[in-house]
Amino acid sequence: MAGASTSMRLRLPIACIALEVILIILFGVAVEYDHDVSGEAGHKTNTTHHDYENEFYYRYPSFQDVHVMIFIGFGFLMTFLQRYGFSSVGFNFLIAAFSLQLATLVQGFLHTIMTGGKIHVGVESMINADFCTGSVLISFGAVLGKTSPVQMLTMAVFEVILFSVNEFILLSLLNAKDAGGSMTIHTFGAYFGLMVTRVLYRPNLDKSNKKNSSVYHSDIFAMIGTLYLWMFWPSFNSAITLHGDIQHRTALNTYYSLAACTLSTYAFSALLNHEGKLDMVHIQNAALAGGVALGTAAEMMITPFGSMIVGFLAGAISVLGYRFITPFLESKLKIQDTCGVHNLHGMPGILGAIVGAITSLAATKEHYGNGLTAVFPKITSDFPASAQAGMQAISLVVTLGIALIGGIIVGFILKLPIYGAPSDSQCFEDGVYWEVYLNTPALNLKSNFFFIPRSN
Amino acid sequence: MAGASTSMRLRLPIACIALEVILIILFGVAVEYDHDVSGEAGHKTNTTHHDYENEFYYRYPSFQDVHVMIFIGFGFLMTFLQRYGFSSVGFNFLIAAFSLQLATLVQGFLHTIMTGGKIHVGVESMINADFCTGSVLISFGAVLGKTSPVQMLTMAVFEVILFSVNEFILLSLLNAKDAGGSMTIHTFGAYFGLMVTRVLYRPNLDKSNKKNSSVYHSDIFAMIGTLYLWMFWPSFNSAITLHGDIQHRTALNTYYSLAACTLSTYAFSALLNHEGKLDMVHIQNAALAGGVALGTAAEMMITPFGSMIVGFLAGAISVLGYRFITPFLESKLKIQDTCGVHNLHGMPGILGAIVGAITSLAATKEHYGNGLTAVFPKITSDFPASAQAGMQAISLVVTLGIALIGGIIVGFILKLPIYGAPSDSQCFEDGVYWEVYLNTPALNLKSNFFFIPRSN
Amino acid sequence: MAGASTSMRLRLPIACIALEVILIILFGVAVEYDHDVSGEAGHKTNTTHHDYENEFYYRYPSFQDVHVMIFIGFGFLMTFLQRYGFSSVGFNFLIAAFSLQLATLVQGFLHTIMTGGKIHVGVESMINADFCTGSVLISFGAVLGKTSPVQMLTMAVFEVILFSVNEFILLSLLNAKDAGGSMTIHTFGAYFGLMVTRVLYRPNLDKSNKKNSSVYHSDIFAMIGTLYLWMFWPSFNSAITLHGDIQHRTALNTYYSLAACTLSTYAFSALLNHEGKLDMVHIQNAALAGGVALGTAAEMMITPFGSMIVGFLAGAISVLGYRFITPFLESKLKIQDTCGVHNLHGMPGILGAIVGAITSLAATKEHYGNGLTAVFPKITSDFPASAQAGMQAISLVVTLGIALIGGIIVGFILKLPIYGAPSDSQCFEDGVYWEVYLNTPALNLKSNFFFIPRSN
Repeated sequence: MAGASTSMRLRLPIACIALEVILIILFGVAVEYDHDVSGEAGHKTNTTHHDYENEFYYRYPSFQDVHVMIFIGFGFLMTFLQRYGFSSVGFNFLIAAFSLQLATLVQGFLHTIMTGGKIHVGVESMINADFCTGSVLISFGAVLGKTSPVQMLTMAVFEVILFSVNEFILLSLLNAKDAGGSMTIHTFGAYFGLMVTRVLYRPNLDKSNKKNSSVYHSDIFAMIGTLYLWMFWPSFNSAITLHGDIQHRTALNTYYSLAACTLSTYAFSALLNHEGKLDMVHIQNAALAGGVALGTAAEMMITPFGSMIVGFLAGAISVLGYRFITPFLESKLKIQDTCGVHNLHGMPGILGAIVGAITSLAATKEHYGNGLTAVFPKITSDFPASAQAGMQAISLVVTLGIALIGGIIVGFILKLPIYGAPSDSQCFEDGVYWEVYLNTPALNLKSNFFFIPRSN
Repeated sequence: MAGASTSMRLRLPIACIALEVILIILFGVAVEYDHDVSGEAGHKTNTTHHDYENEFYYRYPSFQDVHVMIFIGFGFLMTFLQRYGFSSVGFNFLIAAFSLQLATLVQGFLHTIMTGGKIHVGVESMINADFCTGSVLISFGAVLGKTSPVQMLTMAVFEVILFSVNEFILLSLLNAKDAGGSMTIHTFGAYFGLMVTRVLYRPNLDKSNKKNSSVYHSDIFAMIGTLYLWMFWPSFNSAITLHGDIQHRTALNTYYSLAACTLSTYAFSALLNHEGKLDMVHIQNAALAGGVALGTAAEMMITPFGSMIVGFLAGAISVLGYRFITPFLESKLKIQDTCGVHNLHGMPGILGAIVGAITSLAATKEHYGNGLTAVFPKITSDFPASAQAGMQAISLVVTLGIALIGGIIVGFILKLPIYGAPSDSQCFEDGVYWEVYLNTPALNLKSNFFFIPRSN
Repeated sequence: MAGASTSMRLRLPIACIALEVILIILFGVAVEYDHDVSGEAGHKTNTTHHDYENEFYYRYPSFQDVHVMIFIGFGFLMTFLQRYGFSSVGFNFLIAAFSLQLATLVQGFLHTIMTGGKIHVGVESMINADFCTGSVLISFGAVLGKTSPVQMLTMAVFEVILFSVNEFILLSLLNAKDAGGSMTIHTFGAYFGLMVTRVLYRPNLDKSNKKNSSVYHSDIFAMIGTLYLWMFWPSFNSAITLHGDIQHRTALNTYYSLAACTLSTYAFSALLNHEGKLDMVHIQNAALAGGVALGTAAEMMITPFGSMIVGFLAGAISVLGYRFITPFLESKLKIQDTCGVHNLHGMPGILGAIVGAITSLAATKEHYGNGLTAVFPKITSDFPASAQAGMQAISLVVTLGIALIGGIIVGFILKLPIYGAPSDSQCFEDGVYWEVYLNTPALNLKSNFFFIPRSN
């Protein structure tokens, strides 16, 4: 079914093995356990603290929730395609397992610029690496079905680096706040991916258009992804915030934003359909926009009231995007956005950045009491709330700049004819890269049951 | 396929937007962060405690388990219907996202009657709101497939209020113990829902009977729901108990009850089939009855021995209910119980209330030592264990009364011809409320794969 | 479809009820709450510790992750078979719910040999019981599709006992380290199961060979199992290690091993296919070998570098096993290994044991500082690291011996014609033990949608 040019026989093993060997060598050279991981073994003397103060107990449950979002959440959200389930969940798995290793190195390396010494790993580095991976998977959603696994691994290499540089500029140089990554993760991942898919534009993609759709059960599989993302988003936004009330507040605000977002998603999905019928695409995606849109402000004193307003708007914007903006992007701007990441991550991410900047304006003793410094460590009489808000706004501009330019450059790198990309008629088709023995005629869309003999 | 009368074009947006706007306004007026959420910001001075003593770390992992039960557990348990998967998981999502917001307000308002001040929110309110939501979803299971989303939102409004009033009477006025909600959640939700479905009785439901059944893969989807409910039930029962050994004990007892329940479910399922074949309906539902039946007593010193006996009985009762009582309810009492909530939540809930009352009789220093007051704060020489047991028994009666009467009244409210309810032949059919383009002839039960073009 | 000889009408109820009644009686006689569970009630005086020091908060999140691996992970991993989904997830559920109860008793009883007194239960016993259950489910994977539920319950009775004896010898007598069970769980479970399936060899299994394969959607269901096992393996290996940095380190090392393993799995899966196509069997299974192979060494100072090397090797070995060794085992040694447990648990388990022994050689003050005794409590000047390594090696030999001999004996017990085992043509077929009304001709492999009327 697939031409020789898509064969992964050598390409994928070479890419995977080369990348993993390089990762292993760099880990051997540059990485060591964090204090809380090595204990006495690290010859540190700060171990007078009790076991229950180990960072592990503050963050590991959140880490596991984030981990589920990355592998089950993103992986299954993309299984909505009728003939691309293996690739959706399988390549998501591969790209994520690679990206989290590289992210540990790049994020850690940038951190050592400030601190010196080796790269330290522990539960915090695990969460940060998963965050960077999330951004890569957002871009993956934009190009889904139209790229080979080697192409996506290549994209991941560049994106992890650019993500980490952007994150470093925002959090360490500009002192922006972005605990849940409205800017660093969502805005960056979405616009980077949109530029990549723009450069990789396929004018004849309609050849596989029949496969660029869901079937009944694939939509239910996708709901597994949706619901895990929805349920665990409070953990995502709060995973890396400061201990205690800040982590507590971040989770709570996100929970309310998502609940309000769900109601506006259902409302606008029915309203925009001429028969008043709900569209699974909206439910699967737009109901999550409330988590994205609170990625910056969730740790602030935005209150449940404010969170719900933001969530409600995010759901509405996202549904409107699927209905009006995605077709416009495709027909006018030649941006083929398979999963609609512009609606779930792009616009809600920008909304989240703006909400964060506005909410920062209220970063005063009056609203935060003695907790002000914990949330906004830079704010003093010389650096008032308005300056923080300005830094937040600049951060959005920087993020968009790096994402757009980086995405275009990486798009051209991915256009080289060496990755075994599928032809236009082979897009959205598992059979190109996976063993799928059909017991029904190939490409018979009426049946999705292929007979797959086990090789063992 | 659907007549104009079922259109959600205006009904659903109006209902969702109106309800959400009211919720947002009430949250703005009446809600503030709990001390552990606002930290110093709340200008409270009880923040001398350490970060690791923040309520968040005691309860957030349990909250997330409960959250998974509400959205994945209940949602997927109901996907067993062959053509109602979108609605099962999708309306479950909508109803739950709405109910948890309203429950926060109503439960919080009733709490302020005792304490004064504003409604405080934090991880405890999140858990309590999810609990109330669980009760609504139980009632949802009784009417599943036969109601419109607006009808269910309306039901949720009334049920959340009645649930909260009943819970307030039991826990605050009668001083009953019911940490896992055998009475407040399960008994209430089941009998309320059964009364609603009784009032909404459809004599000609056999018109859509073919669709009121499962197919092979929908039964496997449903097992996702079953297993998450089963695994996390120890978290459910213990989520809101006191810190330390009580929370520990509650989880442990529930774990043993469920394990024993599973074996009795398999035993009775095979025994009651004339070929000795297992029935997926029993496995999906009755194996969970052990969690329901320990909802009151799990925090008490019931011992693993006692827990296993209760679990074993609950499984048996539940299977017998599916085999003998559900057909009786339908044919004689005109109660059409789609998911069999009477067997999973109704009878096991009553069993749990009785077990709780009996176990309370042993609420003595001999069995509880200094921990007695922690579990039974009201017990003194003037209020002996027998008085506690009496309060437990009265609580069951009150719960049944409010559920039965409330369910009948709400049933009549839901009978108004304004909600866009499906006709008899449209029941159990996603196509009425969802975009489901068929690539096979409509209602062809041989194929469950509908071709769904994506609107983006 | 099934002959009378496979009827579970009496066999299964008798087995389940008899076993559960025996369990309940033994729990009543021999089990009591652990100190942290009973609190004051247990009349212990060590309750001066704070609530946050309760073992529950250190271990319950890990327990729940392990619990998900047992019920969802193992259960869904085995749903890859096209017509055996009910049995895979359903019998996994039954066997696990039984095994965890029996394991609590047998492991607890062996523990009381050392300590005296009653069997204590709490979150640690829950984790240990789930671990033993995991080993039984590994053996279940070897015989999957070819045995009756009563046969598997019988296997579980013997395997739980033998597992516990082997574990006791390793951990309590030989002082071996094996926190994640490379030896006790994986090696034991795999070789025990392989011997059982060897004794139960079916020369005419090709009669049901068509059903011993996957279909498109069943492979996606199986990925749910794979991903939960993969994500939560760090919790598995660290669930029972010492508090603080050791638990932290164990999770971290496992995470890196799994990430590296995933890349080598994809590399070798593509490399070994003549068209370069990926095989779902490899992805579903071999990507997990990195967790197995670090089951012994993960708590040691193996570093991320070492963990990644082990993970990379484990993935490669496992894929090579599926490609070359499984066919050899089946054709030459007459070992029919349905799930390929030899590749996922057998060889990676042995690798893990060897890695553990080698890593123990570096158990010195230089590498562990004051933490040495925490990881290796037996190591002194009289019992150097090399002695520990020797004990690790001996432990592997003991494990293999007990597993192989035990498996053969139990295999012969299971060969008795009393369990209602399926005939050769009935293997891998849900219809033998489950109500599956077909709306398509029986055994029509082109359709997997059976119409199942609900009995309620």
